[in-house]
Amino acid sequence: MSSIKITGHRINDVRFPTSLTGDGTDAMNTECDYSSAYVTLLTDSPDGLVGHGMTFTIGRGNDIVCTAIKEVANRLVGKEIESLFSDMGKAWDYIMADPQLRWIGPEKGVIHIASGAVNNALWDMFARSRNKPLWKLVVDFTPEEFVRATAFRYITDAITREEALALLKAKEATKAEREASVRSTGYPAYVTSAGWLGYSDEKVARLTKEAVAAGFNHFKMKVGANRDSDLRRGKIIRSVIDDPANLPNGHKPPSPASLEGKNAGPTGAVLMIDANQVWDVPQAIEYVKSLEEIKPWFIEEPTAPDDILGHAAIRKALKPHGIGVATGEHAHNRMVFKQLLQAEAIDVCQIDSCRLAGVSEVLSVLLMAAKFGVPVCPHAGGVGLCEYVIHLSLIDYIAVSGSIERNVLEFVDHLHEHFLYPCSINQQGKYNVPTNPKEGYSIEMHEKSIQEFGWPNGSYWVGARKTEN
Amino acid sequence: MSSIKITGHRINDVRFPTSLTGDGTDAMNTECDYSSAYVTLLTDSPDGLVGHGMTFTIGRGNDIVCTAIKEVANRLVGKEIESLFSDMGKAWDYIMADPQLRWIGPEKGVIHIASGAVNNALWDMFARSRNKPLWKLVVDFTPEEFVRATAFRYITDAITREEALALLKAKEATKAEREASVRSTGYPAYVTSAGWLGYSDEKVARLTKEAVAAGFNHFKMKVGANRDSDLRRGKIIRSVIDDPANLPNGHKPPSPASLEGKNAGPTGAVLMIDANQVWDVPQAIEYVKSLEEIKPWFIEEPTAPDDILGHAAIRKALKPHGIGVATGEHAHNRMVFKQLLQAEAIDVCQIDSCRLAGVSEVLSVLLMAAKFGVPVCPHAGGVGLCEYVIHLSLIDYIAVSGSIERNVLEFVDHLHEHFLYPCSINQQGKYNVPTNPKEGYSIEMHEKSIQEFGWPNGSYWVGARKTEN
Repeated sequence: MSSIKITGHRINDVRFPTSLTGDGTDAMNTECDYSSAYVTLLTDSPDGLVGHGMTFTIGRGNDIVCTAIKEVANRLVGKEIESLFSDMGKAWDYIMADPQLRWIGPEKGVIHIASGAVNNALWDMFARSRNKPLWKLVVDFTPEEFVRATAFRYITDAITREEALALLKAKEATKAEREASVRSTGYPAYVTSAGWLGYSDEKVARLTKEAVAAGFNHFKMKVGANRDSDLRRGKIIRSVIDDPANLPNGHKPPSPASLEGKNAGPTGAVLMIDANQVWDVPQAIEYVKSLEEIKPWFIEEPTAPDDILGHAAIRKALKPHGIGVATGEHAHNRMVFKQLLQAEAIDVCQIDSCRLAGVSEVLSVLLMAAKFGVPVCPHAGGVGLCEYVIHLSLIDYIAVSGSIERNVLEFVDHLHEHFLYPCSINQQGKYNVPTNPKEGYSIEMHEKSIQEFGWPNGSYWVGARKTEN
Repeated sequence: MSSIKITGHRINDVRFPTSLTGDGTDAMNTECDYSSAYVTLLTDSPDGLVGHGMTFTIGRGNDIVCTAIKEVANRLVGKEIESLFSDMGKAWDYIMADPQLRWIGPEKGVIHIASGAVNNALWDMFARSRNKPLWKLVVDFTPEEFVRATAFRYITDAITREEALALLKAKEATKAEREASVRSTGYPAYVTSAGWLGYSDEKVARLTKEAVAAGFNHFKMKVGANRDSDLRRGKIIRSVIDDPANLPNGHKPPSPASLEGKNAGPTGAVLMIDANQVWDVPQAIEYVKSLEEIKPWFIEEPTAPDDILGHAAIRKALKPHGIGVATGEHAHNRMVFKQLLQAEAIDVCQIDSCRLAGVSEVLSVLLMAAKFGVPVCPHAGGVGLCEYVIHLSLIDYIAVSGSIERNVLEFVDHLHEHFLYPCSINQQGKYNVPTNPKEGYSIEMHEKSIQEFGWPNGSYWVGARKTEN
């Protein structure tokens, strides 16, 4: 097995026409065609071992990312897979180390998300080669193996390898317990689907009721386009989620620990609000203060994602009003998360499985968040993100933070049908644990979907252009 | 004239084979083919008005940036130029505002530098249309026009439009004086050409002597690959620049004000060192302390360019050793500069004309740096950067900071022959002021150079491949 090599790659630009439905509209992103820059790493393995990875975009520019993926994936062609798997931290450094490609980042934007797609494909291959879902591969690592697989450059002032080892060792003895527990209960989730700006009040109320009935008790609403409308929609949502009459039969009240500091209502329901970066810092403070009445747990992405000190200032100003700050879906690398934690700028750390450069960089953020005691609630939605992030939250809970009480994982019920191993939600509104030994990082897409929604020549898009003409 | 429209664009991937000579090697960037992702915006003007712009890369990936430039430039096709020129801040917002393209940044990496190339081309066209070099166009703005042309989103917690106006108004009455003065003396420059890691000790000594003889008194050396070698090369450079025997005839000693806090030697020579991001924060502190003996003014890019708090920690630790911190050539947008200033992380603000998204974003950084009292010493070198930055430093001196005493502008004597209006250095080692009313932003490239070094099918590269085979 040791001589199996990566022999090439296949890259697909896949775009879904979500802009037609108004799904996914927020104050910044007014039209989105959820898209996947999708890569399959090929090998000369006799049993057909491959690795699938992708990054997520919202349409135009997906081709630019695909071009970048090709450049990065080329670096792996000819490499022996067991040599890569034996030191995934080194493999990550290697993927990032082309000085010419680095220049057009560095470690940010197109080249970084492209590198993430390739790193994720390599991790998917690694997990498949061991017949384990990705999360299980990683939680079964020894602490030494875990640290070796982590991207460590530029973060040693926040956490050293030795500190990371100690942190992982402290959790090692109880991993099996947590794994058994989460396999039986599932991982806590929340829904955003009800609160898009593009929806009517009636649709918001209906979708919120459905979410309550489905067992969810965390709900997110998009804000920032219009204060009066935000307040009106927020009150509608609160009236639905705070009304005991809407709770499903057999509803069990959430534990006090899981609601601590979350501004929960009388039924234990939690509301989050998300501005998608529309404000300057002083504006953010003033606007969010004025939404105090709807009692949000946190404001997500109040300003530019690069503005660490801005987030810290907003958090400080909103604290007396009982509202926290969350960000991360556009935090472009581990150095940004490091500083958000160092500056005490966030209450919740929202990693993105596609914005960070793959699993190896995610591991570094999980370690830092655990050290700083900040819960990780990954960003999801779009296409493929939910499939990815359940793995990351399981790694966090079982092997790193050991904590699940305050965590909730975003869930959006879009586009899962395109994946061979779609994520799913149980009767209590929680993510099921992926268990298929063949599913790797759960991101393999149906060939039919790739063909139908391939850009620009997939059958869907050819048909759409015919209809236009 | 008011009906002239942008009708299209021409984009060229131009790469110069600088990796053959060892020019431009540093601790991070071990091989570079200095490249230009070059764009010309075309109009239907009867007198053939166009606008040229570019961004700089070091080789591979330049094609990715060209693809992104095409997407961004498409947004301007069909727009009336006078409408754009009348509110360049709004034009900048518009260039940045495509939500789908924004996603693959946002405001960073490939899409941001591509947007910069397009914004610069628009500014070049604006200046040409007014028969002024770019710097002159901008310094002749009223304070109101200047602020309207500036990118202001996400920085109002550091500087409001009103503060910017007040700052510009305070400098208005004395603009003409400063313009006359700098036209006659030139703008202070420094050289990096002597201190590349790829050069032998002998070559370093020889080039340093030549630079001293040419009138320079600020010198930069690359460090970070090997401490002993850095110390040895540093001592060689110091011995040359500190020796009065090497000074040119008629040498005038620099003013005390221009040397304040710069660790200058007995002849008034100043040494800077540049690590190009190779260290983690604790490493940076330890390594640079050990170079105290060669008395650097500052360490440039000691760690990851995104690490604002890391730079602040390094600056604090090095202060007792008399060594400052500079960064900016990879600071990817105005929000990063805002925080570097807010966190007191830098002694010197090194804007990059191509990393920031064009003149409109540069103006916002100039305003913030002036407010915080930090001198702006732009990054240059590569290809085209020197041509660009003399304009930016002139704007800073004449209209914004009003200060030139502590400023020095990087100069590297590479590849200027490819431009129609190359920058130049006078006998006192200072940049000459661009004066041709036709030169715009001085970035128009000779058609012959574009054809010869066009990638992959320019005559040079076709010939190089033939030689290889």
